[in-house]
Amino acid sequence: MKADEKTTKNVKEKKEEEKTLAVEHVETRKWTSKCVDEFDAFLFDCDGVLWTSSAAIDGAKETLQALQKMGKKVIFLSNNATKSLETYQKKILSLFDLRVSQEQVFTSALATATYVSTLKEFSDTLRKKNKILLVGSIGLYEMLTKRFGFEVIWTAQDIANLRGMSGEQVSALPLDRDVRAVIVSMDVGYGYNDISLVCRYMYEVHHEVDHPLHFIGSNDDTTFPQSDAVCLAGTGSLVASVKALNEHVPFVICGKPHALLYQLVQHQHQIDVKRSLMVGDRLNTDVQFGINCGMQTLLVLTGISTREDIQKYRIKPNFILDSVKSIIAT
Amino acid sequence: MKADEKTTKNVKEKKEEEKTLAVEHVETRKWTSKCVDEFDAFLFDCDGVLWTSSAAIDGAKETLQALQKMGKKVIFLSNNATKSLETYQKKILSLFDLRVSQEQVFTSALATATYVSTLKEFSDTLRKKNKILLVGSIGLYEMLTKRFGFEVIWTAQDIANLRGMSGEQVSALPLDRDVRAVIVSMDVGYGYNDISLVCRYMYEVHHEVDHPLHFIGSNDDTTFPQSDAVCLAGTGSLVASVKALNEHVPFVICGKPHALLYQLVQHQHQIDVKRSLMVGDRLNTDVQFGINCGMQTLLVLTGISTREDIQKYRIKPNFILDSVKSIIAT
Repeated sequence: MKADEKTTKNVKEKKEEEKTLAVEHVETRKWTSKCVDEFDAFLFDCDGVLWTSSAAIDGAKETLQALQKMGKKVIFLSNNATKSLETYQKKILSLFDLRVSQEQVFTSALATATYVSTLKEFSDTLRKKNKILLVGSIGLYEMLTKRFGFEVIWTAQDIANLRGMSGEQVSALPLDRDVRAVIVSMDVGYGYNDISLVCRYMYEVHHEVDHPLHFIGSNDDTTFPQSDAVCLAGTGSLVASVKALNEHVPFVICGKPHALLYQLVQHQHQIDVKRSLMVGDRLNTDVQFGINCGMQTLLVLTGISTREDIQKYRIKPNFILDSVKSIIAT
Repeated sequence: MKADEKTTKNVKEKKEEEKTLAVEHVETRKWTSKCVDEFDAFLFDCDGVLWTSSAAIDGAKETLQALQKMGKKVIFLSNNATKSLETYQKKILSLFDLRVSQEQVFTSALATATYVSTLKEFSDTLRKKNKILLVGSIGLYEMLTKRFGFEVIWTAQDIANLRGMSGEQVSALPLDRDVRAVIVSMDVGYGYNDISLVCRYMYEVHHEVDHPLHFIGSNDDTTFPQSDAVCLAGTGSLVASVKALNEHVPFVICGKPHALLYQLVQHQHQIDVKRSLMVGDRLNTDVQFGINCGMQTLLVLTGISTREDIQKYRIKPNFILDSVKSIIAT
């Protein structure tokens, strides 16, 4: 855990710095094949940029392979906290015939677990004593337990019958006074009782003055696109339901657009921010993330945000392309 | 439906007026037995004021009976949209040995159904053509269908197996293009798939320019107290999860603190607002409601808000009492 410890320090030191990062107004430029030369590192969001659901986006394979061949650093950044880093490696290999190391993949699950490890309640000595309550999926559960060694009460497993309980039963559940952090992330099985359990921790345990709880969301993407036409609810919707319970309890979000993920990248790769390009499909997560980190940004139109959105919102990318195909093929 | 039609007009005319009602700063006075003489009408919130869960609050019976004996108008206002007006009548009879007419009881379910009836898409002629999608409980379903004659797709019944569906199945559900309003209310069985279905209506039907949908929440109480010590998630938490899906879609809330409920009271009873007292346990719903309507307000400490909250928040009641018992017994 040496590397994690070092990262932990970086994260702590840079937490304050992040707050001061402002949104810059940027001029949108036309992308030409020469623009590739301006960058040494290409940071790609995944869903909506390189693939949608399980299909590769046309041209993504050629673009990724060409960048790798040019010796560019290619990094994958996903706000999806439900999948392991290995799953991403396998998907990238199968869709793009591209072998990438685990160090090239960063998810909001990794950011969340790293953030928790920066908290004094989850330092190495206290890691086995204090617990986390998780409303989330198996990917995040495994990241927290197997990779970071945290003790986790997972609503989908440790309280297996929670979802069939009556209000009286949820009200009578004994609360674990060793819980020091509550994490909310994507879970397609979540429901009213999960939120109510978080509510009980918020009102019954958090306010015991000695040890206020940490409330953490893995990310806050509000929608979860399934195809060009259909999108279901995203993690941001779950997080909003829990945030609404008590507006006076602080909630930390770990994924893009927050710069914690960038600090993890920086710790592994020491990239030059001025020669790095963030490529994404969402203005309020990907492009905002690039801006927060001081990178240039490229919005592709194969996912969430549209040309109309660019007019409507204050968040502007440096470049706009129909798809990642045009990074190379322009 | 004559009465409803007249109410409808009042509601429409007063909608604009409501927006201009400001929060006044009020001076908190000491309640004495003489204060009773200042008021002809007493509007009571129910949960946390007259009862908690199924038990009467000590002294509530004596207070209600004394007020009725003095010839005061006693009115019951609840943000709970899950129960019928008949259920309230029966509960008041059994707990307080008090016979009240249905016209004395106002719930956010009644406010929600009345609000829908003010929309041109649900006028008498279109009431059988256009439909409502409801995430909510049977109380609101019956109010909408039996009392107001609306066509309602109720996620807990008409899409009975929604809650066991996979993401693919929810994505493949055919959407009903006759839906013109989506209502979100308390439903202890709700979960991810309900929110995702609302998400699909928001992104796939709402933006068809000819007929944007109305998104409506019955109320936004964020917590749902079960006892002195335990509270579960409230309607406001469900509403927040749906609001988060798209910040650019307007969401109308019908219960307290919004003055629609007051317009319904006024339509039935023509009370003098200057001689009316709103009695509640929640600063941000009950007391704010009283202020929005221009009434004096009394906060009792048997429910949600505490003396510390009064210091913390900008919403101040005119009077504070430990319980409704002291209205008469002071």
